[in-house]
Amino acid sequence: MTAYQTLETRFRRLYALRQAAGVLHWDMATVMPDGGAEARGEQLAALDVTGHEMLAAPEMAELFAAADEERINLDTWQAANLREMAREWRHATALEADLVEALARATNRCEMAWREARPESDFARVLPELRSLLDLVRQAAEAKAEALGCAPYDALLDQYEPGGSAEQIEGVFDELATFLPGFLQHVLDRQGGAPAPERPAGPFPVAAQEALARKLMAAIGFDFAHGRLDVSLHPFCGGVPDDVRITTRYDEADFMSSLLAVLHETGHALYERGLPPQWRLQPVGEARGMSVHESQSLLVEMQACRGPEFLAFMAPLAREAFGGAGPAWAAENLTRLANRVERGLIRVDADEVTYPLHVILRFRLERALIAGDLPLEDLPGAWNDAMKTLLGVTPPDDRLGCLQDIHWYSGAWGYFPTYTLGAMTAAQLFAAAKKDRPEIPEAIARGDFAPLMGWQREKVHGQGSSLSTDELLTRATGSPLDPGVFKAHLKARYLS
Amino acid sequence: MTAYQTLETRFRRLYALRQAAGVLHWDMATVMPDGGAEARGEQLAALDVTGHEMLAAPEMAELFAAADEERINLDTWQAANLREMAREWRHATALEADLVEALARATNRCEMAWREARPESDFARVLPELRSLLDLVRQAAEAKAEALGCAPYDALLDQYEPGGSAEQIEGVFDELATFLPGFLQHVLDRQGGAPAPERPAGPFPVAAQEALARKLMAAIGFDFAHGRLDVSLHPFCGGVPDDVRITTRYDEADFMSSLLAVLHETGHALYERGLPPQWRLQPVGEARGMSVHESQSLLVEMQACRGPEFLAFMAPLAREAFGGAGPAWAAENLTRLANRVERGLIRVDADEVTYPLHVILRFRLERALIAGDLPLEDLPGAWNDAMKTLLGVTPPDDRLGCLQDIHWYSGAWGYFPTYTLGAMTAAQLFAAAKKDRPEIPEAIARGDFAPLMGWQREKVHGQGSSLSTDELLTRATGSPLDPGVFKAHLKARYLS
Repeated sequence: MTAYQTLETRFRRLYALRQAAGVLHWDMATVMPDGGAEARGEQLAALDVTGHEMLAAPEMAELFAAADEERINLDTWQAANLREMAREWRHATALEADLVEALARATNRCEMAWREARPESDFARVLPELRSLLDLVRQAAEAKAEALGCAPYDALLDQYEPGGSAEQIEGVFDELATFLPGFLQHVLDRQGGAPAPERPAGPFPVAAQEALARKLMAAIGFDFAHGRLDVSLHPFCGGVPDDVRITTRYDEADFMSSLLAVLHETGHALYERGLPPQWRLQPVGEARGMSVHESQSLLVEMQACRGPEFLAFMAPLAREAFGGAGPAWAAENLTRLANRVERGLIRVDADEVTYPLHVILRFRLERALIAGDLPLEDLPGAWNDAMKTLLGVTPPDDRLGCLQDIHWYSGAWGYFPTYTLGAMTAAQLFAAAKKDRPEIPEAIARGDFAPLMGWQREKVHGQGSSLSTDELLTRATGSPLDPGVFKAHLKARYLS
Repeated sequence: MTAYQTLETRFRRLYALRQAAGVLHWDMATVMPDGGAEARGEQLAALDVTGHEMLAAPEMAELFAAADEERINLDTWQAANLREMAREWRHATALEADLVEALARATNRCEMAWREARPESDFARVLPELRSLLDLVRQAAEAKAEALGCAPYDALLDQYEPGGSAEQIEGVFDELATFLPGFLQHVLDRQGGAPAPERPAGPFPVAAQEALARKLMAAIGFDFAHGRLDVSLHPFCGGVPDDVRITTRYDEADFMSSLLAVLHETGHALYERGLPPQWRLQPVGEARGMSVHESQSLLVEMQACRGPEFLAFMAPLAREAFGGAGPAWAAENLTRLANRVERGLIRVDADEVTYPLHVILRFRLERALIAGDLPLEDLPGAWNDAMKTLLGVTPPDDRLGCLQDIHWYSGAWGYFPTYTLGAMTAAQLFAAAKKDRPEIPEAIARGDFAPLMGWQREKVHGQGSSLSTDELLTRATGSPLDPGVFKAHLKARYLS
């Protein structure tokens, strides 16, 4: 066996163990009885430690060095696989064991403190734990920056968005931050000039919601021989590419929210399912990163399914599912309902127009905190100031402000930008797909996603991690990330 | 850390990985879509190989040698834990890697051939694959016998019934084989002298069956905060002690079969739940072996729940669940129905009286095959002869004869005796429990299993693997396995 082949064998096992953990996570969120939590924790920890030991084994450095010398014999995909293996190995070995352990403990303590502090809106309660955690995250960022040869914030970002750069994001986000506040006011003015859309009256029985969700999932291309739909507290996409499991929650007073969550997760699921089958259990066969992943859910949910074509297809099915009748059930009314914009305090409830502003705020603040430019105790004030500037609203308390998201308190720094990178990427991919295959909108209006998904399968899903995010997007759309396409999408949808 | 402590740490992780595999097996049998099978195979193989490598690591021999020298500092449970660790390590390291691999391949091929051969009743179809597999099983038995210092058949038995001895089983089984054929004829004569019990008429809706099953499970002591009831093709008890998951299947024409299967699996589940919590993830904290495990399911199903007290408690609940009325629903009729005896060809459909005869047949044949005393091509004839002698019936073909069970074809040699050892152990434990706590039958008649389960928790469940099977039984009942108690139970139930 060559060194490269040995690495492939090791990563295959490592990824199979990760898949096992993926299924256990799904189980924990959907069907596990409460009393199983402690045992499950032990199982996941054992898988995690075992996987980490495999990556950090002393002979890995030699294997990578030897594989590097064999590079001439590797084809493009193998070379990309080796690059992705090495990236992962550098992340895994960048931190000393003490720091990993200290981070795990601090994360756990901080997340627990946050769970107490949030309902009480008591930032001071979590401040000491967050300070300890941030201190360790900054140390980790330094160590990873050294190992990867990049800036500390970029090293954190790289965990979620390989090759991502804060400088590039800053440019794109600044353009949005300039455009969106004024645009938002235009949209609100326009909305205010017409009567508000009507909400269809419930109740909407869970069984009928689920049946409709399954029908639409199948239309979009979800294969139930390779996946499931279940219920969990928060919707997610889990499982593994050949057994991809999405979840939702049902509200009998509002069928739209659950349905749109299902469509969102279906976008994630189709990406996983479409990853190159010949590269299963290898790094190059994995999804490219979080921004591309989010682009896939948003392409389905925001670009396709909140558009008038899809909602015209869905409206009669929804009327049939719930016995709905009258103007509230008209496609035009449902479209206005699905695209309602407002200035809100909470990111996860935000619409497509305001969502990026929530993300830009977090990106700017976390960069300043990591750089040491913002004292942690000033976070609540800085948050509220930025909300006022970007969104024109001020949180009445920290529960609706800087305590609302779990990310920072659970150690996920550098994650937030991927949401909005994903939204912009989705707009750019959808525009390119429609340009390449002009029949797409008409097909969607018939509930036929084959043209769109065929394009996606070729340009995005089937590429795995063989290309960088920039290359992927450039090959698929002709240019790297261009906020102009997203802006054009917003103008077309909300002002035309 | 002492060597013993190091071993504990390693086994903790090993057992956590095994628990992960347990949950994945449950998932595969209950909720996994078909398309997930290949990926699941990879996940389970990765867990299996990783666990085997941990056990077979070169430094383990030294650790066991060093721990042996520390033995004086260990308390009773630690010493028992070390003994069980060593037992497992000897099994894991007794076979050369080539033999393990050859066995895995041969097992896979033979099981696949059996799946084709059985419906066609074509023993010749599977004979070559079974010959290859048996040859390897005999090699493995020799190698394990050498490592464990016992006879080859006993080495196979030891995988399921630690410390078990064919010689001891032979004595017990010979006594049953002498007693049962004549006894069976008496029971059948007696049954024939009265009208057959009536079958309650269905259909019995699945939802009502499930609700009744859950109610009875809860009465027996199943804690749904630490477990689940689901549906699978074959009923089983899976999961882990703190999250124990049983399954059943429903037949809308017959509620008794599913319900009794649920009660059987509940017995297994309560054993797992009652294992000593302070020894989770250590060998000494595991169930003692397959015969004690089977005793727990049979104690609940056969001893307690097919008895007149429990059925008197259940009858009104069943009437209520299904809207039943009339003589078919009387407790006395249901009791006769639940204890119907007949000469059958199929082990899994057998009643309590004939079941041991099916097992004795298999025990005798597998011993002869392992010893080389019976040529494999003579198996069908030997099977049919033994059926005639022991049960008085002759299979019309091999599908209803030597092809009926998967065990041999999937490499499980030495397993069969544990079913009947379990049945005898169940009778002995139940008799001792009633002697210690005379209130048990009356409590069961009220649906109160607390006195029985309290006794079991102390005498059986809480002992884990700290004692040998013989010691466990002797401490709990005053004597090692005594077939006389089982015979007395049969006489009391079927002839009184």
